[in-house]
Amino acid sequence: MSKLVRFGVSLEDGLLKKFDSLIRQKGYTNRSEAIRDLIRNELVDQQWRTGEEVVGVVMIVYNHHQRQLQPKITDLQHDYGSRIISSQHIHLDHHNCLEVVIARGKAGLIRELAGRLKAIRGIKHCSLNMSTTAKGIA
Amino acid sequence: MSKLVRFGVSLEDGLLKKFDSLIRQKGYTNRSEAIRDLIRNELVDQQWRTGEEVVGVVMIVYNHHQRQLQPKITDLQHDYGSRIISSQHIHLDHHNCLEVVIARGKAGLIRELAGRLKAIRGIKHCSLNMSTTAKGIA
Amino acid sequence: MSKLVRFGVSLEDGLLKKFDSLIRQKGYTNRSEAIRDLIRNELVDQQWRTGEEVVGVVMIVYNHHQRQLQPKITDLQHDYGSRIISSQHIHLDHHNCLEVVIARGKAGLIRELAGRLKAIRGIKHCSLNMSTTAKGIA
Amino acid sequence: MSKLVRFGVSLEDGLLKKFDSLIRQKGYTNRSEAIRDLIRNELVDQQWRTGEEVVGVVMIVYNHHQRQLQPKITDLQHDYGSRIISSQHIHLDHHNCLEVVIARGKAGLIRELAGRLKAIRGIKHCSLNMSTTAKGIA
Repeated sequence: MSKLVRFGVSLEDGLLKKFDSLIRQKGYTNRSEAIRDLIRNELVDQQWRTGEEVVGVVMIVYNHHQRQLQPKITDLQHDYGSRIISSQHIHLDHHNCLEVVIARGKAGLIRELAGRLKAIRGIKHCSLNMSTTAKGIA
Repeated sequence: MSKLVRFGVSLEDGLLKKFDSLIRQKGYTNRSEAIRDLIRNELVDQQWRTGEEVVGVVMIVYNHHQRQLQPKITDLQHDYGSRIISSQHIHLDHHNCLEVVIARGKAGLIRELAGRLKAIRGIKHCSLNMSTTAKGIA
Repeated sequence: MSKLVRFGVSLEDGLLKKFDSLIRQKGYTNRSEAIRDLIRNELVDQQWRTGEEVVGVVMIVYNHHQRQLQPKITDLQHDYGSRIISSQHIHLDHHNCLEVVIARGKAGLIRELAGRLKAIRGIKHCSLNMSTTAKGIA
Repeated sequence: MSKLVRFGVSLEDGLLKKFDSLIRQKGYTNRSEAIRDLIRNELVDQQWRTGEEVVGVVMIVYNHHQRQLQPKITDLQHDYGSRIISSQHIHLDHHNCLEVVIARGKAGLIRELAGRLKAIRGIKHCSLNMSTTAKGIA
């Protein structure tokens, strides 16, 4: 685990007051924690932009009664082999399912996986959530 | 299940060619499917904007060795009772975990859940992924 | 003008190194300046979210040869009276124009202006850029 | 100018009703116009993603009383020569200015311009708005 270091930040008086009020509202207990979060968000954005290894979650919503849809979704995931960490299935209602696919790999590959799932006929909604392996942000 | 209806769309010749090339590249097999996806995205955006019932996934990354962090995360989730459909835990490495929390409820409540998780000291990254109950988009 | 205050931030050693490398790459000369930018972005986001007075720029692209289009665009802008600070016109090519409309007012009103411009038949692209009156971020 | 072509789209009954209600609310007079807008947005996104020639607007907010700031901003813009179509200056209050810089060029270059402006010490807010030359979307 990396050790904590301390450094000084200069900020306009009025700006700091506004920031303090914003982070109190958001539930932070101190400035360092809030600034750490801003910094980590920037770093995770950069990991996705520069194509590093990331963790992404693809969420798809579909009707499992549609013929041949589930096998297609499963086949496609198998193309990505061990990059798929897990695939979780939620029954939204009698017809509709949510599948939450957690994958780890180069940012480009995860985007490709999401794009290919999205284009399958019968998938009603597909979204990609960008997270991190935690490497380089701790 | 709702029945299919057919309607006509007028589009500039050149625009249609560009669109056809874009969707081929994305892997769609026909225009209706691609247009359906654009429409559904708009509707899901609107569900989140107007505060309807939605499905959201909150992903948090944290170090499970940090004292008292896991109980805090679990306690907070219990505040949301049956709105949390499931909470899945992935071991990223020796220290770091990914927790994928799937929740269903009014958009405002899901945002609040994500905001409160994000502000917990020790959470390294938190992101919210907006999906849908499939109601109103099928 | 508000005076500068100085405060300490604690950060994990490794995280700080990554941040330093990111901001050097982005051209910042010191950490305070980079952190100030992250904080101001958060505050401007909040101004738009909570509906405060903001500055927004709406960019529309259209074909000025289309009959009755320009008068409609101008009429609509007049509905917003003195909230429109300026409207600048760029000739993109023989047919197409870019109009850059700078407006100041409550966030909801600026969004409404952008939405109404976007829906005019013949507008080919419309985007809204969120800026600030500078109040509360200095 | 390109001629209009007409093609059929198949959509679930319920989805079409929802879409009709959404676009009526947004002020569209017919479906083709709304679908055209969705398609054009996709194409402009793609132009920025693939690095084609685009039009971008960079908005910066700064205090013009800060020594040496304005010459720096102007110098930097001159590095981009004829790519800068225009630069408009708005007085927000006694201290603060908004500068709206309209540029045309490869997407990467416009992003670089925005990034370099953002990093100048004293710039309080900088945002980039992605528009289009209208080529390929008409």
